[in-house]
Amino acid sequence: MEKKTYISDLQDQTSFDDIFALAAARMNQAKNGPYWQLTLQDKSGTMEAKIWFPASQNYEGLTAEQFVRVQGRVSTFKDQLQANIKTLEVLDPLEIDRSAFVPCSTTPPHEILEEIETILHTEVVHPAWKKLYRKILKDQAIRQAFLTAPGGKTIHHAYLGGLLEHTLGVLKACRAMSDLYPSLDRDILLVAAVFHDLGKAYEISHGISREYTSPGKLLGHIHLGLEVLAPFLNKSDLDEGLILHFKHLILSHHGQYEYGSPKLPMTHEAMVLHMADNLDAKMNTMDHALEQTDTNNWSGYQRSLERDLYVPVRTPQPEKTTRKGPKTKEDQCSLPLKV
Amino acid sequence: MEKKTYISDLQDQTSFDDIFALAAARMNQAKNGPYWQLTLQDKSGTMEAKIWFPASQNYEGLTAEQFVRVQGRVSTFKDQLQANIKTLEVLDPLEIDRSAFVPCSTTPPHEILEEIETILHTEVVHPAWKKLYRKILKDQAIRQAFLTAPGGKTIHHAYLGGLLEHTLGVLKACRAMSDLYPSLDRDILLVAAVFHDLGKAYEISHGISREYTSPGKLLGHIHLGLEVLAPFLNKSDLDEGLILHFKHLILSHHGQYEYGSPKLPMTHEAMVLHMADNLDAKMNTMDHALEQTDTNNWSGYQRSLERDLYVPVRTPQPEKTTRKGPKTKEDQCSLPLKV
Amino acid sequence: MEKKTYISDLQDQTSFDDIFALAAARMNQAKNGPYWQLTLQDKSGTMEAKIWFPASQNYEGLTAEQFVRVQGRVSTFKDQLQANIKTLEVLDPLEIDRSAFVPCSTTPPHEILEEIETILHTEVVHPAWKKLYRKILKDQAIRQAFLTAPGGKTIHHAYLGGLLEHTLGVLKACRAMSDLYPSLDRDILLVAAVFHDLGKAYEISHGISREYTSPGKLLGHIHLGLEVLAPFLNKSDLDEGLILHFKHLILSHHGQYEYGSPKLPMTHEAMVLHMADNLDAKMNTMDHALEQTDTNNWSGYQRSLERDLYVPVRTPQPEKTTRKGPKTKEDQCSLPLKV
Amino acid sequence: MEKKTYISDLQDQTSFDDIFALAAARMNQAKNGPYWQLTLQDKSGTMEAKIWFPASQNYEGLTAEQFVRVQGRVSTFKDQLQANIKTLEVLDPLEIDRSAFVPCSTTPPHEILEEIETILHTEVVHPAWKKLYRKILKDQAIRQAFLTAPGGKTIHHAYLGGLLEHTLGVLKACRAMSDLYPSLDRDILLVAAVFHDLGKAYEISHGISREYTSPGKLLGHIHLGLEVLAPFLNKSDLDEGLILHFKHLILSHHGQYEYGSPKLPMTHEAMVLHMADNLDAKMNTMDHALEQTDTNNWSGYQRSLERDLYVPVRTPQPEKTTRKGPKTKEDQCSLPLKV
Amino acid sequence: MEKKTYISDLQDQTSFDDIFALAAARMNQAKNGPYWQLTLQDKSGTMEAKIWFPASQNYEGLTAEQFVRVQGRVSTFKDQLQANIKTLEVLDPLEIDRSAFVPCSTTPPHEILEEIETILHTEVVHPAWKKLYRKILKDQAIRQAFLTAPGGKTIHHAYLGGLLEHTLGVLKACRAMSDLYPSLDRDILLVAAVFHDLGKAYEISHGISREYTSPGKLLGHIHLGLEVLAPFLNKSDLDEGLILHFKHLILSHHGQYEYGSPKLPMTHEAMVLHMADNLDAKMNTMDHALEQTDTNNWSGYQRSLERDLYVPVRTPQPEKTTRKGPKTKEDQCSLPLKV
Amino acid sequence: MEKKTYISDLQDQTSFDDIFALAAARMNQAKNGPYWQLTLQDKSGTMEAKIWFPASQNYEGLTAEQFVRVQGRVSTFKDQLQANIKTLEVLDPLEIDRSAFVPCSTTPPHEILEEIETILHTEVVHPAWKKLYRKILKDQAIRQAFLTAPGGKTIHHAYLGGLLEHTLGVLKACRAMSDLYPSLDRDILLVAAVFHDLGKAYEISHGISREYTSPGKLLGHIHLGLEVLAPFLNKSDLDEGLILHFKHLILSHHGQYEYGSPKLPMTHEAMVLHMADNLDAKMNTMDHALEQTDTNNWSGYQRSLERDLYVPVRTPQPEKTTRKGPKTKEDQCSLPLKV
Repeated sequence: MEKKTYISDLQDQTSFDDIFALAAARMNQAKNGPYWQLTLQDKSGTMEAKIWFPASQNYEGLTAEQFVRVQGRVSTFKDQLQANIKTLEVLDPLEIDRSAFVPCSTTPPHEILEEIETILHTEVVHPAWKKLYRKILKDQAIRQAFLTAPGGKTIHHAYLGGLLEHTLGVLKACRAMSDLYPSLDRDILLVAAVFHDLGKAYEISHGISREYTSPGKLLGHIHLGLEVLAPFLNKSDLDEGLILHFKHLILSHHGQYEYGSPKLPMTHEAMVLHMADNLDAKMNTMDHALEQTDTNNWSGYQRSLERDLYVPVRTPQPEKTTRKGPKTKEDQCSLPLKV
Repeated sequence: MEKKTYISDLQDQTSFDDIFALAAARMNQAKNGPYWQLTLQDKSGTMEAKIWFPASQNYEGLTAEQFVRVQGRVSTFKDQLQANIKTLEVLDPLEIDRSAFVPCSTTPPHEILEEIETILHTEVVHPAWKKLYRKILKDQAIRQAFLTAPGGKTIHHAYLGGLLEHTLGVLKACRAMSDLYPSLDRDILLVAAVFHDLGKAYEISHGISREYTSPGKLLGHIHLGLEVLAPFLNKSDLDEGLILHFKHLILSHHGQYEYGSPKLPMTHEAMVLHMADNLDAKMNTMDHALEQTDTNNWSGYQRSLERDLYVPVRTPQPEKTTRKGPKTKEDQCSLPLKV
Repeated sequence: MEKKTYISDLQDQTSFDDIFALAAARMNQAKNGPYWQLTLQDKSGTMEAKIWFPASQNYEGLTAEQFVRVQGRVSTFKDQLQANIKTLEVLDPLEIDRSAFVPCSTTPPHEILEEIETILHTEVVHPAWKKLYRKILKDQAIRQAFLTAPGGKTIHHAYLGGLLEHTLGVLKACRAMSDLYPSLDRDILLVAAVFHDLGKAYEISHGISREYTSPGKLLGHIHLGLEVLAPFLNKSDLDEGLILHFKHLILSHHGQYEYGSPKLPMTHEAMVLHMADNLDAKMNTMDHALEQTDTNNWSGYQRSLERDLYVPVRTPQPEKTTRKGPKTKEDQCSLPLKV
Repeated sequence: MEKKTYISDLQDQTSFDDIFALAAARMNQAKNGPYWQLTLQDKSGTMEAKIWFPASQNYEGLTAEQFVRVQGRVSTFKDQLQANIKTLEVLDPLEIDRSAFVPCSTTPPHEILEEIETILHTEVVHPAWKKLYRKILKDQAIRQAFLTAPGGKTIHHAYLGGLLEHTLGVLKACRAMSDLYPSLDRDILLVAAVFHDLGKAYEISHGISREYTSPGKLLGHIHLGLEVLAPFLNKSDLDEGLILHFKHLILSHHGQYEYGSPKLPMTHEAMVLHMADNLDAKMNTMDHALEQTDTNNWSGYQRSLERDLYVPVRTPQPEKTTRKGPKTKEDQCSLPLKV
Repeated sequence: MEKKTYISDLQDQTSFDDIFALAAARMNQAKNGPYWQLTLQDKSGTMEAKIWFPASQNYEGLTAEQFVRVQGRVSTFKDQLQANIKTLEVLDPLEIDRSAFVPCSTTPPHEILEEIETILHTEVVHPAWKKLYRKILKDQAIRQAFLTAPGGKTIHHAYLGGLLEHTLGVLKACRAMSDLYPSLDRDILLVAAVFHDLGKAYEISHGISREYTSPGKLLGHIHLGLEVLAPFLNKSDLDEGLILHFKHLILSHHGQYEYGSPKLPMTHEAMVLHMADNLDAKMNTMDHALEQTDTNNWSGYQRSLERDLYVPVRTPQPEKTTRKGPKTKEDQCSLPLKV
Repeated sequence: MEKKTYISDLQDQTSFDDIFALAAARMNQAKNGPYWQLTLQDKSGTMEAKIWFPASQNYEGLTAEQFVRVQGRVSTFKDQLQANIKTLEVLDPLEIDRSAFVPCSTTPPHEILEEIETILHTEVVHPAWKKLYRKILKDQAIRQAFLTAPGGKTIHHAYLGGLLEHTLGVLKACRAMSDLYPSLDRDILLVAAVFHDLGKAYEISHGISREYTSPGKLLGHIHLGLEVLAPFLNKSDLDEGLILHFKHLILSHHGQYEYGSPKLPMTHEAMVLHMADNLDAKMNTMDHALEQTDTNNWSGYQRSLERDLYVPVRTPQPEKTTRKGPKTKEDQCSLPLKV
């Protein structure tokens, strides 16, 4: 069975029959008997759903991370759409293309990774750096972690492929800044850009719902990344001073103590990497915050940025280059990621 | 008479006979009689100097901003070089090429301004923006202020032409970021980049020694810039929403309340302008801080950045592209700027 | 039809038939069919109301800012009073005296403005200042904006006439401080007190429900005020130094960077204006927070002040001067403000 | 012998023969032998002075707090005036009018205290408050402490009588604010204003040079004041709720945790007292900072206020009321305060 | 009647018949008529309960702090357990052992107090300190306040006996630190440890539900404690310097201005007391936060500590000493505390 | 030749002939000719010294880290003692016992290390932890680094053996806290206490004058310590969860982001380790600050603690246990540490 409709398309008072992932499942108690409280998810979003008593008695052992076929109808409850489920069937996860159920970058992750490798191939000159990045990216565990990691839990790039999308953004920004300030050490800056957030692949789980892992919470992605990179650095042909600088670039890229950066950027390259990281994260955060605006083009208060955001009137453009705006969800990645 | 030697070249126990500007002049009292305490300045730096009693009696009315020919000898006092002056002659300022006496950008200011205009010419498409920037840059008072303004008092771009150098840096960074994030409103971003710090031309005096003006201290360069730009905006052909956005770009470019920004950046373009401004200022600040380093390549503590800075080991480069490093003072601007 | 009862007087289980403004209107979906979710407003407050299915089908196109006659009954839902509407009729707004529907200062706005003008007339001596304030207050657009502006959105003076009430409070406080510290420049301080928050008339909309405008959010009332005042200052007979000082007074009156003040107060008068502004705002904020207290005279936690507030035991008073306390809503302004 | 000249009048290269207090005295070692390093003080300021070898051998046991007759001559050392002493004679302190040697308020302290008592007499109505303030002010130890206490060590009111001057300023400001906001509890506010800083009389020593006492540093003036007031409050006729409020007024008057206020102001009166205290302290701090300004009317950076201060152009005044400006030192208190 | 079941043991869909305290009682309005909204409390926790119409009509005057026998049944409402009450009977409070209804320390308060006295008896050597602590602890009002006071309102030791439990913890920590750093003044440190939070006995009410008192909110427990201790200190045989130090220990024990500490710790002993207080409070806060963890051993976000907390894997232990973990509620204090 | 006198014993106008280390050496220029400006150092402190012209001509190539025999005389210059050197002889460093020239812990480092090992031996039970700490401490490079490392550069434990002294202090504090809170995981806490600051041995150089190393500044001691420990952890028999917890203990021990802690303590053990570290550091900082006090027992302002410190009156003690006070320098370590 093919998935036909997405949660973001469902409207009040419409019926549907389609496949979803369960992001959460719990049995609750209503006056007239127990009911299932489910959270349906696909790549376009999530929706609360209920199987009321006595139909609820027909189902046992529903849990998060399952895939289910659901027949139901959408209604409104407290200004939120929710689904009343008539029938539900648990599916074999091996039959499912997961990419339809997890929010994903517009460009398929493997294409983003290829673009990153192409840029490194073109731009990095020093043999020891070339050898280093190739060895790391050839490591199958690292490569797989990179391909499936989100870029964050909630604020920015919070979707499959998000880590790669952010990595590519930072890499391109660093390349541009190297053009602007030619005295920068281009090689080390570009390699560090690619691996600056590698630890995020280990900080956040890659399931249907993204959660911080215990190592992620206890050690943080800066330390986790350096742990993964350490054996490669130890075996590299790089000068000791370059290794020291590279570690400093990773260690200081959050830029400020209050963001958990154990060190402040102390070199031109460290400052540039921090700023490129900050720029790309902020632009993506703003994109998502501005996906929904009020009638005056305001986003409402954004806690993470401590301000409201605004879509301004745009300079008229003679050409066809219209504002692309935040990514549209419809054309997102469809790469087959069998479990 | 031609200026031959610069203060940065003078060494202990050498004699000299050359032209300097007076950055400060004051008569003090020693045990054996009154003496002149002078601060000599040329574009390479400043040096304290003394005319001891009784020679001091030969001079009257020495004041800051005069140009003088001095014969003297350099000695060391408390680890600082200083000059003992044997004879001094006050010169006619009209005979003097000021550019030798004020630290100046490496590229002559008028060339930087031309490059800015070329970029605007090439990049800005919308007729109303084109008309606006041309009118502003054709205004002779604004143009002259731009050409002679420092970029700051002490921290970054603190030299003649510094405002233009910083403006060009921010303009190029905004252009690069427009390439990275094509949904940005390129026209407004580039025009705002050029005028974001225009108020600095009125915030700091343009004499031998740079000082904040009273309007600069009481109102700040953000407000001063908007005051200068207001009549041009009012007479422009721009849509009201574009004018509103433009003002917001200027008003919010400091990015944080604690830096005196009355508003936080609330649009993508405002965020980018703030980041481009921050990037260029930080890179220049680091350049100057790293002009002198200790034997381990550390700059010592930099109060404005709250950290030490470091020149790391550099990736070996096959080509001739060696690190340019901080600008060398010797080849700075020599454009004739008669008073 | 005359408005008879006010929302603050409605009690549980009572019926009513009266006129209200709609502060919000939205159609929602209940199990048995769609219903209207309305927010009724008059000058005494707001109340949620519902038109249930199938009566809801009788109404179309209800929107905020309409005036309606409503028959209904009050009940309690989650400890909040709400109204069940039986019949509703949309009225012609031209027939309505708006002053009954918008919370308003106790004293009618035009009387407050007259008191402000009387004080200026009595106190300001220098002809150029007299000319300036008269020209500004004679401007019909400014006068109208002043008369209908709230003093804030939520924290203090958040009602029609609130800006004038706050302005009068700050003016009187500055007059008193001028008496205490006679070396202050009384003229400039009093004129600046009157116009320090003029920008607020443009920062917040003046409709049934108060909202920040886009210029208000993007530029802020400090800048908006200076923009409105600039042409008057430019054409005034004032010495340039006085204009500079006046602008500094407006620009620095928030007193601290973290409150969006682009400059700190740097003169005695600027410090006094900031403190008078702060005093009047805090007193009004406390008045409103203490309108409702618990049985121990505590207000509960006030987020804007980061503390609980308290009504202390009061020194017994021999005379009749009893504590007036927070303004009572009943006797508020009834000036006819036809749309 | 009468004191004739004051330190603020002494100029370079002049001789003098007059009486001073010693604020510090220490024997140091020069190349040719030991010399006395003294700090001379009178109410107009302090000046460093030296008795060189071998004259230094004629004096033994010079210590701070002595009064001395000195013959000497003023010279300049590192841009500071200093005195070379020819002869010195230690005087009997009982013969000395101390008021000439300690910086003092313009109005004699006892006159300020009388004015405070007059205001209380006129304004306070409730018998229990009247009884309380009279008992406290009749206590001879408290009265004497009040009369001789400075208002602070360095920042504001740092001179004999300063505590009373500040107390009167706060009292008047509270009276004015009670007029502005008539619902305030006038009696408690005025009595609290008079005693809010009583603890300062015990926090700072009253000798020639002002120093924090150990109780002052370990407990602070808020606690010390409450300790002194406690027995009076316990024996008063006041309602328990009034005593509680009074203590809260004293305890919270610093207004912010970071200034060592253990509680934030939680009543209207507490907020007003804090603001009146802040206003008077800031005005006095600014007066002193602006006693010396540069040629552009700027004070230079003031660390305690984190800004530069400015004397603005003043509105022309038809009458004779010229700006009084900071108090002139010449006409300060001459009350006889025999040891 | 004996209390049999505790709230923490009640489960969905079970019936019960037992005694509870009322922490809150309020009559509300449902569609079909008025109902009672009650908060049942015993030492194990609280649960919301309802008496629906028309049964609600059978009860009048239910109020907080009453003891009631309730027959009812537990159900789930919005993921919270709540009780539907069938019958309710108000009991005579004199018949009730309160200790079953207020959360209480594991060890009975009087035993904790005895342990504190034993430690003081053993450790304190100086006669004047011995006399002081005995006099204070023999004061019946103080002793009773100590025995029934909670240690805080919500964050740590928020239960009957909590103040004593915290006091014992700080006392033991100070004893241990005196062993580690033998130059500390052991006597004063231990006595101050016992009385450092005495004011808390007056800051929080001791009823069924704990609330801050008005003196607690207006003056704070630091001041309240010093007020209670002052007469004992004044009549003690202690050297004045010791009394000063003792007051400083109490006054500075919060350690930081932002926590309402009017003074920072300035002696070794004050620093140690602050740290012991902080340690014991943090450990107890963490114990309670970790009473409930998710399946990964995480507590969820703890606002008071600004972080998540974690129960780590524990080093395997050969002996029987298993982790005791947070106190179990079942074996809490059962001392008879008749009203 | 034996060292006889120490710098802390030298007084004004005395002659000496003894051995010192050079902490700094530089040739300067006086009016009459060049002179050597030297900084003499021994374990008791440092003193500036000069070899004047023409004697200065007799010496070449003097540099920091040399050992010299000096004959000279002490004088006072600007209230500082300094030495005029008559003759100087550079010594063979191999002949020198360095321990006399570097400030050192009172107890010899190797004895402290033995005490640490004894405690671990006694307290740690789990075989995998026993194996881990033994392997690390048997590593000769780590052992040597530990033995010669200072505990800090300036604030606390800034002397040879200081790292071990601090480590022992933290270990003992953790042991005491494990006794106070028996549910703590004692084994992991004690092992983590011993290695929490191991990275400091690599963060600060161990020469005559202590300086931060480049890895120390760029990566910090938290990261450096984890790098050194990583191979031992990887090869250990410990459960993965224990290794994760151990790393978290090291990573979070600074306790607050603003102190460069990349993570906050999230377990009981992490909180305790942070507090033990903080306690020991603060106590040592206070010891050193209070080595010199004024006549009122105050230390003067301590920038690192943002306060003055005080030596209070001490409770009289019947026994002989007098206050030991800050360590006396005279009896410090004399272990032979030949270069």
